[in-house]
Amino acid sequence: MTIEPARLPLMANAIRALSMDAVEAANSGHPGMPMGMADVATALFTGHLKFDPSAPHWADRDRFVLSAGHGSMLIYSLLYLTGYAAPTIDDIRNFRQLSSPCAGHPENFLLDGVECTTGPLGQGLAMAVGMAMAERHLNAEFGDDLVDHRTWVIAGDGCLMEGINHEAIGLAGHLGLGRLNVLWDDNRITIDGATDLSTSEDIKARYVATGWHVTECDGHDFADIERALQEAKADPRPSLVACRTLIGKGAPNKQGTSATHGSPLGASEVAAARETLGWAAAPFEIPSDILADWHMAGEPGRRAHGTWAGHLEGSPRKAEFERRMAGDLPEGFSLNAHIAGLIEAPQKIATRKASEIALAAINKALPDTIGGSADLTGSNNTLAGGIGTFSKDDYAGRYVYYGIREFGMAAAMNGMALHGGVIPYGGTFLVFTDYARGAIRLSALQHCRVVYVMTHDSIGLGEDGPTHQPIEHLASLRAMPNLLVMRPCDAVETAECWEIALTQKDRPTVLALTRQNLPQLRLEASAENLSAKGAYRIKAAEGPRKAVILATGSEVSLAAECATQLEAAGIGTDVVSMVCSELFDEQDAAYRADILPADALIVSIEAASTFGWQRYTGCDGLNIGIDSFGASAPASDLFAHFGLTAEAIVPQIQNKLNA
Amino acid sequence: MTIEPARLPLMANAIRALSMDAVEAANSGHPGMPMGMADVATALFTGHLKFDPSAPHWADRDRFVLSAGHGSMLIYSLLYLTGYAAPTIDDIRNFRQLSSPCAGHPENFLLDGVECTTGPLGQGLAMAVGMAMAERHLNAEFGDDLVDHRTWVIAGDGCLMEGINHEAIGLAGHLGLGRLNVLWDDNRITIDGATDLSTSEDIKARYVATGWHVTECDGHDFADIERALQEAKADPRPSLVACRTLIGKGAPNKQGTSATHGSPLGASEVAAARETLGWAAAPFEIPSDILADWHMAGEPGRRAHGTWAGHLEGSPRKAEFERRMAGDLPEGFSLNAHIAGLIEAPQKIATRKASEIALAAINKALPDTIGGSADLTGSNNTLAGGIGTFSKDDYAGRYVYYGIREFGMAAAMNGMALHGGVIPYGGTFLVFTDYARGAIRLSALQHCRVVYVMTHDSIGLGEDGPTHQPIEHLASLRAMPNLLVMRPCDAVETAECWEIALTQKDRPTVLALTRQNLPQLRLEASAENLSAKGAYRIKAAEGPRKAVILATGSEVSLAAECATQLEAAGIGTDVVSMVCSELFDEQDAAYRADILPADALIVSIEAASTFGWQRYTGCDGLNIGIDSFGASAPASDLFAHFGLTAEAIVPQIQNKLNA
Repeated sequence: MTIEPARLPLMANAIRALSMDAVEAANSGHPGMPMGMADVATALFTGHLKFDPSAPHWADRDRFVLSAGHGSMLIYSLLYLTGYAAPTIDDIRNFRQLSSPCAGHPENFLLDGVECTTGPLGQGLAMAVGMAMAERHLNAEFGDDLVDHRTWVIAGDGCLMEGINHEAIGLAGHLGLGRLNVLWDDNRITIDGATDLSTSEDIKARYVATGWHVTECDGHDFADIERALQEAKADPRPSLVACRTLIGKGAPNKQGTSATHGSPLGASEVAAARETLGWAAAPFEIPSDILADWHMAGEPGRRAHGTWAGHLEGSPRKAEFERRMAGDLPEGFSLNAHIAGLIEAPQKIATRKASEIALAAINKALPDTIGGSADLTGSNNTLAGGIGTFSKDDYAGRYVYYGIREFGMAAAMNGMALHGGVIPYGGTFLVFTDYARGAIRLSALQHCRVVYVMTHDSIGLGEDGPTHQPIEHLASLRAMPNLLVMRPCDAVETAECWEIALTQKDRPTVLALTRQNLPQLRLEASAENLSAKGAYRIKAAEGPRKAVILATGSEVSLAAECATQLEAAGIGTDVVSMVCSELFDEQDAAYRADILPADALIVSIEAASTFGWQRYTGCDGLNIGIDSFGASAPASDLFAHFGLTAEAIVPQIQNKLNA
Repeated sequence: MTIEPARLPLMANAIRALSMDAVEAANSGHPGMPMGMADVATALFTGHLKFDPSAPHWADRDRFVLSAGHGSMLIYSLLYLTGYAAPTIDDIRNFRQLSSPCAGHPENFLLDGVECTTGPLGQGLAMAVGMAMAERHLNAEFGDDLVDHRTWVIAGDGCLMEGINHEAIGLAGHLGLGRLNVLWDDNRITIDGATDLSTSEDIKARYVATGWHVTECDGHDFADIERALQEAKADPRPSLVACRTLIGKGAPNKQGTSATHGSPLGASEVAAARETLGWAAAPFEIPSDILADWHMAGEPGRRAHGTWAGHLEGSPRKAEFERRMAGDLPEGFSLNAHIAGLIEAPQKIATRKASEIALAAINKALPDTIGGSADLTGSNNTLAGGIGTFSKDDYAGRYVYYGIREFGMAAAMNGMALHGGVIPYGGTFLVFTDYARGAIRLSALQHCRVVYVMTHDSIGLGEDGPTHQPIEHLASLRAMPNLLVMRPCDAVETAECWEIALTQKDRPTVLALTRQNLPQLRLEASAENLSAKGAYRIKAAEGPRKAVILATGSEVSLAAECATQLEAAGIGTDVVSMVCSELFDEQDAAYRADILPADALIVSIEAASTFGWQRYTGCDGLNIGIDSFGASAPASDLFAHFGLTAEAIVPQIQNKLNA
């Protein structure tokens, strides 16, 4: 049983009706895009997208990304119409209300079938690149029988105009991701008006220049859409299909204008649209014959799922495939042996180097990792463990040369994490988290296990100067919800941090690592991962405790030096390595009070902005840091210049205690 | 007297020698790019660039931007060789040392002739777009006699691969900035290796698709370079000149490889390079005949400067031109009349709307402003005062439709501010400061007067949900040095904030503005700008003061509501509007202690991350905010959901006081 072509326009109108009605009810939202792309989306979901509404997590489903996330009613309509368990029609009635999973923009954590959170423009397409990478990698690993799907994207002009688009399509073109198909809603309208108000670009030529296949179609002619989709699938390159559409199609007086973009159509225009579309059903009602047609759309996918399940059952790699897709680490995975080796033979190395040797162990024990760097491989020390290069000639490779594309890298890593089956990590300098910040936020919001290997984490990088020296970055990342920011002080803590990061199935981690060598402070074996508490006493006061110094990363050894001098002066001093304040904040009150005793002076030392440290030191404590931009000089000169030496700090602590 | 063409290769070798020697002495730096682009730079500086080494601030000079800022020794060499007062040869000897203005990357605040700080890749070119915009605008305003110069850029592969490149060249192509000429160091090498490791793009085709003129040349053939530069200048479109070069040219064993990119060549390779180049002079010594040739390079510029000075003297617009270029506001500029009008007829409006009506007054009184928005004009309320559209058909216009290019917009604004003569402001949603953050940081580092009009500043934006609701953004921006973050609570404070922002000649401002309406709290005339102190008591305790509530923006009226309920319960409560914490921190200790009395409970209320507020409240205070991501719902539902109501807050304050 297949859907009659003549039914497609009616099915598309169901999307239009739900979209305009939901936006009208919410008195908020974006009807123009769902109405404009209803025909293309109908063609995709009825004829091409491989999906099983009863099994939204099926590993070999096609991924569908609504990069133009403001058009969220498009995907809510599609999920409802094709028979997903959610959203219900009541969820759609409650579009954009607190009780509904149909949020203003699609959120992957609210609805199955929403593969990623979109809304921040350009990132959906860039995440789709990561999904397509993960698909090819797992295909290389597990074969066509288990992994053989496409990634489909609907994107708008905004997605294509954002800078990240250049990075994303450059990566996709270079990697030859032929199973990535982007349907561009070429409606020539943005919020401010016609696209020619702000752009004169030949988008199709740009995509061709970037290694893509490009075709176009009339986005309201089903035969033409079908031809274009077939063409896109047949080409070995990633494809852009320029779908010429009328924004808000069906709203007779407003279609084709920016008036339909981000506001309800209004009661009279909705009535006029019903007239135009010949849509007689009441709001939120879908005629049963049309709903029945829509329910057939998932049939081919259901059948394919059944076949696939048979393949999985018969596969000798079933357990491993399931482990990978579940995101579990291999049984018994641990870095204990690696850490024991460090205890035995302490290393005075940079934590970026410590990360590299930890990664050598990780990448050998954990086939899930896909590493990379935004053109700083030798600086980020991200290539380790003998993993090969991921390229269009070898998708089995596990190291990605991302190029100078920090934002694109981060978004691709989100896409990989969301796809599942792989654990992505990638490096750049900590200061350039600024370039990738939009995607780091989406890692956190979407609960993605992504590990950011951010090296050159302070003025300790030296001569490259203020543009390369992070100051406010640690604070600004710590302020972000659901993100772990870890700054290990030596090789042992670095390994512990990697272990923690890999076990966080539902949140990303930033590892802030030094360029410069650090002494190994952790010299004794520990049964537990001490960093997992977020902060711990790495050196206890010898004399009666009067001060507690909190420090992170490269400043822990400085704090220890200060403590030694203070002890010599009779001032008992704890040194706490605050390796991850988010984890520390999750400890119980007793533990926190033990680390931060009320009867001691609390001092923070970090070669970064002091902003935020007062939550531990209070207003009465002492915050040693750098609240200006850095400078260009050898690292040791800079530490002296900015007062980050025991000579400069110890008297301040003494004065404060004497005050 | 002109420079003989045969001398050019020798002159270029002077750049090579200084670059490799300085990097060698510093044992740090990037010799490959200056050595590779020495010939092109020599051709540019001797034959095309209009500059006067004795007057680096001459308004009508060509702007030269070394977008590939890691090759800083190129510009230091050029400034020294052409006879700028700085750097001296000792400054170059001390390359990358604390005492030298020759920092690792070029810093505009350290050396005249360095038009902007570069190093964060892609932003130099993007700032150059802004410089070229400012040039055309001032040309439209003051005519060819006073404003008639070009903007030249040297960019590397990194600058072209970054996402911001797409935004920047899209804007430049659309605006037809024909006086922008980019010389691309096409050396096919990045840090990780050959460019084909990470990109397969046809860069030239992409530029053509984006509305640029493109030509190419052999970057080591002076005749070919000359032909290409002439061609670039003749074309009415912005130009990309692909200069095919050998990275590290002159270093016989390392040239053409990434080994020359970011490390000293080493003594033996430097010796071999001296041999290859036939360069017999000692390190840091330039043969006098070559130095004499170089000193001639500025001659045409000196003469042009003289002619131009005559034009200025004879111009009826001399005073206005000088005022504009000095960055001074017009005499008597003030918003007092506007504010008096608000006091007379209070407005219950969103602060974005308050910003619009302030801008209407500003844009009429201040011809310097160039406004715009990244495709959110109607949401950011940035178009006001009857300013026309800046377009290639009318560069006199003062409103830029930046398109969906937040990062490109911010960088262009930096370029405009650095060019001088204009005061740029531009809008997007506060959450999308994440997209522009790299450029906001450069606004702050470079001391640029740029005003960021960031609307939709909290969950108060409502239904668009967590991707659009800033949480950590205020904290993360406050952590950045040299940036003012202002969050006004009503229409009066909004006008005060605009007044402050416009008078900050050496730092940028972020205005965080609401989507939702707010009551006007400031109802009495004030002789001074109360917001200028950063925080002030907007409502003093009636009973004996037990609590002080600090709040910003939309939460000030909530704080006032809490205070009213607390007063009714006998708890004297101050309400402080903390409109700009950076300005508050600059007040004297007495003022700060008066606002934050030691004997009261200090409470902060802000619909955002509480991170950082403890610097005012201490660990013993109370921090009301949102430390998770937002949600999609009507604003009032969200405020209730997140506990930002007087009903939820007042009992917490009472409990804390009773504890």
